[in-house]
Amino acid sequence: MKASPVELIVKKREGGAHPADEIRGLVDAFVRGEIADYQMSAWLMAAFLRGLDDAETVALTEAMLHSGDVLRLPSVKRGKVDKHSTGGVGDKISICLAPLVAACGVAVPMISGRGLGHTGGTLDKLEAIPGFSVDVDAKRFERIVREIGACMIGQTARLAPADKRIYALRDVTGTVESIPLIVASILSKKLAEGIDGLVLDVKVGRGAFMKDLDSARELARALVRVGTRAGKKVVALLTDMSVPIGTTIGNALETREAIELLMGKGPADTRELTLRLGAEMLLLGGAAKKAPEARRQLERAIADGSGLAVLGRMVKAQGGDVRAIEDPSRLPTARHRVEVPAKSSGFVTACDALELGLTAVALGAGRTRADQKVDPAVGIELCAKPGDRVTKGQPLALLHLSSKKHAPELVARTAAAFTLGRQAPPPRPLVIERIAK
Amino acid sequence: MKASPVELIVKKREGGAHPADEIRGLVDAFVRGEIADYQMSAWLMAAFLRGLDDAETVALTEAMLHSGDVLRLPSVKRGKVDKHSTGGVGDKISICLAPLVAACGVAVPMISGRGLGHTGGTLDKLEAIPGFSVDVDAKRFERIVREIGACMIGQTARLAPADKRIYALRDVTGTVESIPLIVASILSKKLAEGIDGLVLDVKVGRGAFMKDLDSARELARALVRVGTRAGKKVVALLTDMSVPIGTTIGNALETREAIELLMGKGPADTRELTLRLGAEMLLLGGAAKKAPEARRQLERAIADGSGLAVLGRMVKAQGGDVRAIEDPSRLPTARHRVEVPAKSSGFVTACDALELGLTAVALGAGRTRADQKVDPAVGIELCAKPGDRVTKGQPLALLHLSSKKHAPELVARTAAAFTLGRQAPPPRPLVIERIAK
Repeated sequence: MKASPVELIVKKREGGAHPADEIRGLVDAFVRGEIADYQMSAWLMAAFLRGLDDAETVALTEAMLHSGDVLRLPSVKRGKVDKHSTGGVGDKISICLAPLVAACGVAVPMISGRGLGHTGGTLDKLEAIPGFSVDVDAKRFERIVREIGACMIGQTARLAPADKRIYALRDVTGTVESIPLIVASILSKKLAEGIDGLVLDVKVGRGAFMKDLDSARELARALVRVGTRAGKKVVALLTDMSVPIGTTIGNALETREAIELLMGKGPADTRELTLRLGAEMLLLGGAAKKAPEARRQLERAIADGSGLAVLGRMVKAQGGDVRAIEDPSRLPTARHRVEVPAKSSGFVTACDALELGLTAVALGAGRTRADQKVDPAVGIELCAKPGDRVTKGQPLALLHLSSKKHAPELVARTAAAFTLGRQAPPPRPLVIERIAK
Repeated sequence: MKASPVELIVKKREGGAHPADEIRGLVDAFVRGEIADYQMSAWLMAAFLRGLDDAETVALTEAMLHSGDVLRLPSVKRGKVDKHSTGGVGDKISICLAPLVAACGVAVPMISGRGLGHTGGTLDKLEAIPGFSVDVDAKRFERIVREIGACMIGQTARLAPADKRIYALRDVTGTVESIPLIVASILSKKLAEGIDGLVLDVKVGRGAFMKDLDSARELARALVRVGTRAGKKVVALLTDMSVPIGTTIGNALETREAIELLMGKGPADTRELTLRLGAEMLLLGGAAKKAPEARRQLERAIADGSGLAVLGRMVKAQGGDVRAIEDPSRLPTARHRVEVPAKSSGFVTACDALELGLTAVALGAGRTRADQKVDPAVGIELCAKPGDRVTKGQPLALLHLSSKKHAPELVARTAAAFTLGRQAPPPRPLVIERIAK
C-alpha cells in the first residue's frame, strides 16, 4: 500500500528513513499537485530538523533530477566536467575557467544562475557582453559543447523543475540552511547537464553562504559523498570567501577581469583559483594524470591564447560581440568613477566580502528580488586588498557609478568594509582544503 | 522592527521561545492571510519538534481565542463551569452531566463537537432527540444558560476561527499529536464560552487519543497549567478508555442511557464518571466546598428528578421533543436487532473500545469524513463487560442495524472485540488520577 502524504510527513517527523521509492513518490506527487505546498513545507521542516541520510539525499537528488529533462550529450565524445561554486563575491572564475579547460581538451557543459542577495551570478556577468545570449536550447547547447568545448547557459524550466519549486518553497519557509537539502538542490541541477564529473568550489567565510569552516566542510563532504553515490566523479575545494576574489565586483568589471586573465594578466588570486579548479577538472575529465601536469597545460593555454580563443568562439556562438573579448574596454562602462580614499595609513588587514557584496547590490550591480534588473556597468574596483600597505588619501577602491546621487554614502560604506592596521595580517590560504572520495 | 514570517519560523526551528507578541503576530497574520498555509505548516512542524513552553502555549491559546467572538454571559450570575472530554467510545456523559450540575446550582454553557473517526460526538447524540437544535445564537445561548442553567450547542464559525483553520492544517500536515498544540486548541475553544472553570476528562487507553498513561498525564498536566495561567480554574481527571463507557455506543442509544441515568437507572460506570466529574464542577463553580458534599448534591438531583427536569427544559428551549425525555423509547430505533453470541463460556477479560468504536462507525453511527451524515438509531448495546461471566451462545452484545446486509461481518467483528478467559480480570479503576494545580 502506498503511504499517504501525512504518513510520509509523520515518518520523517519521527526520525524515520525513507526508502528511495518513498522519496520518489513524495517528489512526483508534489510535482503532480497531489501533495500540497503546505504538506511539502511540513515535510521539509521535518527533514531539516530530523535530517536525511546519504541514501535519502541521493534519492531526493535523483527524484528532482528526473522531474525534468536530463541532457545526455551523446555526440560529445570528450570527458564532460563542470564546476559549481556555492557563491561568493567577485567570483568570475567560471568565465575564464570554462574556456581554459575546454582549450585543454575537456568539455564544459555549464548551466549557471543569476545573482541574488550579496553574491553575483555568472549569467549576469556574461550578459555584460553585448548580444550574449544565455538562452540556448538543448540541441544547440550540445552542438556548441561539441564544436567549441564550452557553452554557458541559464537553467530552463525543463531542467529539474521539482528543485525549482521546492527551492522556492524552502526560501519562504525557513528551510534553506539544511545540508542534505542544499546538496540535493545543487546536484539535481548539475546532474541534468549530462556531465561525467563535477568540481565543487565550496566557499567559506563572511561573504559565503557557509560562514564557518566546519559547516562548509560538512557541505563539501556531503556533496562529494552523495555525488559519488549518484555515479559521478566529484571533487570539492574549500576556498576562502572572507575577501572578494580578484579586484572587481560588478558584472562588466568581472567579465573584463576574467578576459584579462585569459590574456595572461589579472590578479594572482583569480589566476590561482582558476588553475586549482581547472586542474581538478582536467583530472576528472581524463585530460591529465597528475595535478602538476594539469596545471602546466592550463598555464600553456593562457600563455598561447588558446583559452581566450575558445572564449571568443563561445561568445560568437552564443550571439555575443567578439570585439568585447578582443578589447574588453568595449564592455559597458559606468558614467562616473569615484575614489574611496584611505582615512589613515597602514596595512589593509581585512576587506569584508559580505559588506562589499551588499554595497555592489546597492550600486545596482545585483538584486535583492529575483525580478529586478541589474546594471552591467556599475561595480567596485578594489585598489588594495589584505596585506597591501596604503597611505592616507590613497584609494582603497574605485566605485563605478551610474549616478553620483548617493556617492558619499556609498564611499563611506565601501571604506567601512576595509580594516586598516599597523601590521600586515598573516597570509590566508586561498584553497583551504581539498575533499575527494 | 516586526519579525517576518521566515524569521519567526527560523526562530522556532532553532529552538527559540517566542514572546507573546510574536505568537499573537503569527496567528493574526495567518488569519489575515499575510502568512501562507505553507509557512504556518512549517512553523507548526518546527513547534511540534522543538516544543512550545507554557508561556508560548498560553499566548497561542489566547491569540486563537481572540481571533473570534468571546462570550461573556454577563447576565448569568451563577458560577459557570464546563467539562471537556478528549474523546472516547460510548462517552455520553455530557448529556446527563450538564443538566445535573445545572440542577445543583452551577451554570453549564457547553459548546460541543461532532463525532469523527472512532469517537462519537455530543452534538450527534443530542440530535437523536427529534427537533433538537444545536444551532443557537449567542444571545439565546446566554438566555437559556441564565434561565435553565445549561445549554448545549455546536461551535460556530465565529468562535476561535484561527483554531479551526490551524487545526485543519495540522490534520493534513502530520502535526496533530503535539501536547502544546492540542492544549491551545482545546482551551481556545473552551475559553470562548465565557466560563470561570473547566473540568477535563482526559481519556487514556486503546479507545482514546492518548494510548498510554504517561502521555495522557502529560496532556492533563499541561491543560491544567496552561488553563490556570490563562486565568481559569481547571481540574483534570485521567479516566480509563480501554473499555467503552456504559453499555451503549451509538447516538440514540447513548442519549437513552444518559436520560435513564437521570431517572436513577443506567450502568454503574456511567453513573460513577458523571458523579466524579460533576463533583469537580460543583467545587469549581462554588456550589459545594468538599467533594463528598458535592457528590451528595448530585445524587439528590438524580433521586429527586431535578436533573431530568433541567434536561427536559433545556431540550424544550432548544426545540426538541420533550416526550423523548419522558419516555426514551420515543427516540429513533433501528429496524433490526442482531445478537452477538459468545463463542465459548468464561469471563469477559477485555472489550476493545477502539475496535467497537470503529465497528459503530461501520454500522453508520459515526463518520470517517466530516461531511458524512450519521444514522441516529444504529449502534451497539453491550450485554457483557470485563469481569462479567458469560456462557457459550449468550449474547455479548446486541447490534442495532438499519439493514441486515452486512450483519454477519458486523457480528463477527463485534465478537472479535471481546476477549474471554478462564479467570475474571483484576478490576480496572475508572478514574486513574486527579490532576489539579
